[in-house]
Order: sequence, then structure tokens, then C-alpha cells
Amino acid sequence: MAMDSFMEAAFNIAKTADFMRVRPNPLVGAVVVSGDGVILGQGCHEQFGQAHAELHAINNALRQKSDLSRCSLYVTLEPCSHQGKTPPCTELIKKHGIKRVIVGSRDPNPLVSGVDVLRNAGIDVEVHNHPELIELNKEFFVNQRYQRPYVVLKMAMTIDGKIADRNGNSKWLSNELSRKYVHEKLRPSADAILTTYNTIIKDDARLNIRKQDGSIYDKNVLVIDRDLKLLNRENSGLSIFQTHPNSIIYLFGAQKELKKVPDNVRVIFTDFDVDGNINLEVLMKLQFDLQHYRMLVEAGGKLATQLLMHNYIDEMHLFIAPKLMMDQHAIKFINANTILDISSTKEFELTEVNHIQSDAYLIYVRKFL
Amino acid sequence: MAMDSFMEAAFNIAKTADFMRVRPNPLVGAVVVSGDGVILGQGCHEQFGQAHAELHAINNALRQKSDLSRCSLYVTLEPCSHQGKTPPCTELIKKHGIKRVIVGSRDPNPLVSGVDVLRNAGIDVEVHNHPELIELNKEFFVNQRYQRPYVVLKMAMTIDGKIADRNGNSKWLSNELSRKYVHEKLRPSADAILTTYNTIIKDDARLNIRKQDGSIYDKNVLVIDRDLKLLNRENSGLSIFQTHPNSIIYLFGAQKELKKVPDNVRVIFTDFDVDGNINLEVLMKLQFDLQHYRMLVEAGGKLATQLLMHNYIDEMHLFIAPKLMMDQHAIKFINANTILDISSTKEFELTEVNHIQSDAYLIYVRKFL
Repeated sequence: MAMDSFMEAAFNIAKTADFMRVRPNPLVGAVVVSGDGVILGQGCHEQFGQAHAELHAINNALRQKSDLSRCSLYVTLEPCSHQGKTPPCTELIKKHGIKRVIVGSRDPNPLVSGVDVLRNAGIDVEVHNHPELIELNKEFFVNQRYQRPYVVLKMAMTIDGKIADRNGNSKWLSNELSRKYVHEKLRPSADAILTTYNTIIKDDARLNIRKQDGSIYDKNVLVIDRDLKLLNRENSGLSIFQTHPNSIIYLFGAQKELKKVPDNVRVIFTDFDVDGNINLEVLMKLQFDLQHYRMLVEAGGKLATQLLMHNYIDEMHLFIAPKLMMDQHAIKFINANTILDISSTKEFELTEVNHIQSDAYLIYVRKFL
Repeated sequence: MAMDSFMEAAFNIAKTADFMRVRPNPLVGAVVVSGDGVILGQGCHEQFGQAHAELHAINNALRQKSDLSRCSLYVTLEPCSHQGKTPPCTELIKKHGIKRVIVGSRDPNPLVSGVDVLRNAGIDVEVHNHPELIELNKEFFVNQRYQRPYVVLKMAMTIDGKIADRNGNSKWLSNELSRKYVHEKLRPSADAILTTYNTIIKDDARLNIRKQDGSIYDKNVLVIDRDLKLLNRENSGLSIFQTHPNSIIYLFGAQKELKKVPDNVRVIFTDFDVDGNINLEVLMKLQFDLQHYRMLVEAGGKLATQLLMHNYIDEMHLFIAPKLMMDQHAIKFINANTILDISSTKEFELTEVNHIQSDAYLIYVRKFL
């Protein structure tokens, strides 16, 4: 069903909020419409932890001394029915005697059932699932639906799909501006960066955020390190132990004998399979518990392939350097044996193509609707 | 040295011509400038076989009754000194007593030495090699410098660099609009299409031009077919023998025992090495003799790799489907073992990034200046 003009108004209001201030909450917009089709109030969820869109829209309408019992409420996402950082919106709707609520998309968390609460209170509720509204909050939908972070893979590669030469050297495939983009945009937007001990040791990767204005930040880093090699004495001088004063480096290891652990390091014991692969489901669940709602993956082809094979990559940011490696022994972006037929390739959606000087910069999202 | 304003004027005039009408001749612009710095005449080479830019500019100035002996001539490309389809421009310049000629770029053909002819006639000649002017005529420069066609590789591939699944199935990686683009733009701009017997047999490829307005054209097709398999009786029903009524299908084979050859087929005998590879140098030279100045390659990964390894690809048009094959046994775009180190990758220049619906469409040119 196409979005009507009132839902579209609510959608447009939702988009006016700054995603970075609202996340990990969703973007939501609401409008209060009179019986004769006039918008009396409107609002959006502006900041994490603060008033929901419904409250703004209703207060807005009340300021005009509107009789809400003659009004409809259009809201882009199912109203909450639980006490979170703010009281449940369903109570607010009931309190003001609103008789009709139009919901643009269901809340992906099956435990939130504002629609049922409203219907039980005798309110007329119409429910849609507009793809545009789900798209708007795809990160939130992934978080809630799968109880895991929204996972963004960043990869620099050659035109022929190689991420390093046969000796593992990858400095530098992409150009300086592309690498700056990672510091300016990709790392800042994530709650944590997922990598492997290998990636850290190989380049003494710092994995912090060094902006062009000279400011330096750090984010939590998750390191898959089965044997806890980063804790070996010869690795104690790695830059990463210095570059993360304000965040935690989580080492995911299987090794039970714990060595001395630096202050900013936590070790999380987990299972690995016989091939040495971490259990991704467990890893993802843990991220969610750590409130890592958006995770950036900066690692090699092996982890990338494993994540892609299991459909854990929601977005890919590919920086394609204008080079051909021409060496089949060089290290590949994808190294898997799984799909045999052209009809069963893994499908993505190309959302952006850009030029960053000499590099092509392509953004893909997982088809998930 | 930066281009001065008169050379820039000549450059701008050169660009006003329609490349498709001028080719395989170069785009050339000329201006006649008076002693006190006024442009008295200008012109460009407008159509293959017709008047050169110098003639237009000079005639233009003469119409204003200018005294050319007090003028300078700025021309983007070295004036010709030989009788071609038109008389030599050097004679024209001498005849009108022009005392100073500024040449924007040397003619890439070492046999054309208009500069020497002019200097021997006592004319003051200044020579530049502005990269923009060489770029403008890169096809012409490749043709003349290497005596071979300008070679354009078209390839449809997955994000992970596969051009077909492990069974060789490639129908369809790229989307319909991308395939239409090949018919609307890439095939029409080429003088010939290079392919292999394999590519033709596998998909019963027609390799003609089917435009959206319903019109159908054909271009010469070059087929690498060492054992002349296309002439085997079981292949006589292939569409390609029907779809090329106005052009020639050249089979490059090593087989000396000639079978019956259809009317539109010519067999060219040539050498192949022990691995079954054609001698590319010979192939390129032959193309030039056949007046194939721009050649489109539509073939598999093996020929593409061979051409790339030997620096015979001047331009790559890559259609990247939003898919991951995830199968290392699938057929690769590049399959070579040559380059071992990140510092020795083959470099290209990204000139365009586009979106054709779901496909990314990237254009690369060989670094050649």
C-alpha cells in the first residue's frame, strides 16, 4: 500500500532528526491530524533517551487547544508500550483519547506490542509496513530483529579483487583520501571495530580515529585472537595498547591460561571450531550485550568471507584501487567454495558509487526486506 | 609548460568537432593570431578526409583580408607534411608566409615531421607536448605510436571478480540495461570486435548491434580459433554466420587444412605458441592493416588476462553486478601469476564511475603518458 500524504508528512519529519544523535534509537516521526484533515501537531524523536515523536506531536497539537479525541495520530513506527527512558507512548495516546492510530511500520522487536495495547484499549489501529520506513531504520531493524549489531565491512582491494600481495603486504592499496575517509566517516559512525590479531600485528594497526582537524578518538576494538597472541610479551609494544585510552580492547580467545592483561584489555573466552573459526552467532550476541549496535569490520579476507557466507554483513564499503594485481597467489577479498551456480550468487544492492580521486568507492547493502 | 590562451582557444575549437565523424583522424584545432594578439581566424578538423584545421583557420583569416605574414598560427597537433586525402598543411603555411607556428603536440607518427619541414623553411616553430592534447587524441596516439588499434575491454563481473560460474555460465551477470549499453555505445564505437571461438559457441553469441529503436548493424568480428572449430560442420548453424551480412568474420587459426568457408568468413593463418596463445603483436599489426583503429574485446578471462599482461588494453569498461560468487572455482576475470609485489601492480586511471541500475559501471584507462 502506498504511503498517504499524512504518513509521508510523518516520514519527512522523521528524517529531519540527526541520525547520529538519535542512534541506536530509530528515527520516528508523528503527526496529529484533525477530523477534517488538517495537521494540528507534528514532531520527531530528536535525541536518544529523550521524548518520542508521539509526545512532541501531541504536545504540539495541545498547544493549539485541539480536541484530540477527534484526531488521528500517524506515526512512522509502532508506538512503544514499555517504560524505557521515557514513559510508554501507548499510555499517552490512551490518556488523550485519540481514537485512531495509523502505524507506518511494526516494531521489529516482537516484545514491543504497542498495536495490541492500543487495540485492547478500543482504539482503531491501522498497520502498514512501508518499505521506505523500514529502510529508514535498517540499522535499528537489524539490531532488534536479530539482536546483533548492524555490521559494516570496509575493504580496500584491487580491480581484480585482491586485498594484499602474496606476502600479505597491503600498504597502501587505496589512496590517502580514501584512508582519511575511514577516519572521518566510517570509524566515527561505529560503536566498535572488529578485527583479527593478524591484522593488528601485520601493520601495527592503531585502529583509532585521527581526524584531519588533529583530533584523536578511540572506539572499542574487538579482536579475534584464539590463542591470545596479542598478550605475548613480544607483542606488548604494539601501538594499539597505547592508542585506546578511553575504550576497551576485547580479545576473543579460547586460551584459558590467562597472562597479564593491560588495563584497557578484556579477555572474552569463547568457542572456536576445529578449523579455528569463531562462533559468529555467539560473537554477534555478545556485541549486542556490549551495546555495540553498529560494528565496523576491518580485517582480512578470511573473516570477511566467513561473515559474508553467514549473511552477517549488512553493508559493504569497497575502496577499489585502480590496479590489477595479476597474481592468483595474492590474497583475495573472497576465498570460498560455497556457491556453484550463477543463479545462487549472494545478492546485494548497490546504493552509492563514488570517485575518491583515483579510487572507486562503492557502497552495497544486504538485501534484507 | 601551461597552455596559453591561444592554444587553449585552439584546444576548445578542436573539441567542438564530433569525434565519431573525425575518427580515425585526430581532433585538431587551429587559430590564426595577429601581431597584436587578436584571433583573426579559427577552425577545426570537422570530418575524416576533409579539410584540416589549419586550412579552415587560414581561410577564415583571409576572409578578413588579414596579412598572414604578420600572424602566428597556433595548432593543437603538428601540421602534416605529406599528401594524404588533402594537401600537406606545411605547404599551406609556407604559401601564406606565416612566420611563427606554435605546435601543441607532436604527431605521434615519427614519419610525419611537419615541424622539421617548417623549420627548414625558416619558420619560427615552438613545440609543446601538452598532456591535455595528447589525452584528447589518445586513440590516435595509440594508433600511430604503436601501429595497432586502440583496445577496449568490456567485462561483466561479480564484486568478487568472477565472470562466470564454475560451469562457465555467465547468463546474465550484468543487468539488461548494462547489456543494452553495450549495443548502444560500445559496439557501435568500435571498428571490430575481438572474441574467441569459445565465447561464440558457449552462448551462440551474435555479436551484432541491436539498438533499442529496432535497427540492427554488424561490425567485423575477429575470432581467435586456432583449430578453426567454427568451421566444423556441427557449428555451421551458429547465429553469427547469419548476423553479419555486411561485415567480415576473420578467423585467426593455425590449421592449414581449410574446410569450406562461408561467404562472410576469412581465415587468417597465424602462429600460436606451445600454450596455444596467439602472437598478440602479430594480431595487433594485422588489425591496423585491416583499418581496425578501435577494437572492442568481448571474450573470457584467459584472453583478457593475456592482453592485460602485455599492456594491450587501453580502456576497460567494467560492469560490476551486485553479486558475490563466493566460489574460488568459478571463472575469474584475471588469472595470472605474474606480479608478486604490491609495488608492481598494473596501474590504471579511473575515469568514470556510474550506476546502471543495480550495476556499477567503471571505466578505466591505461596510464600511457
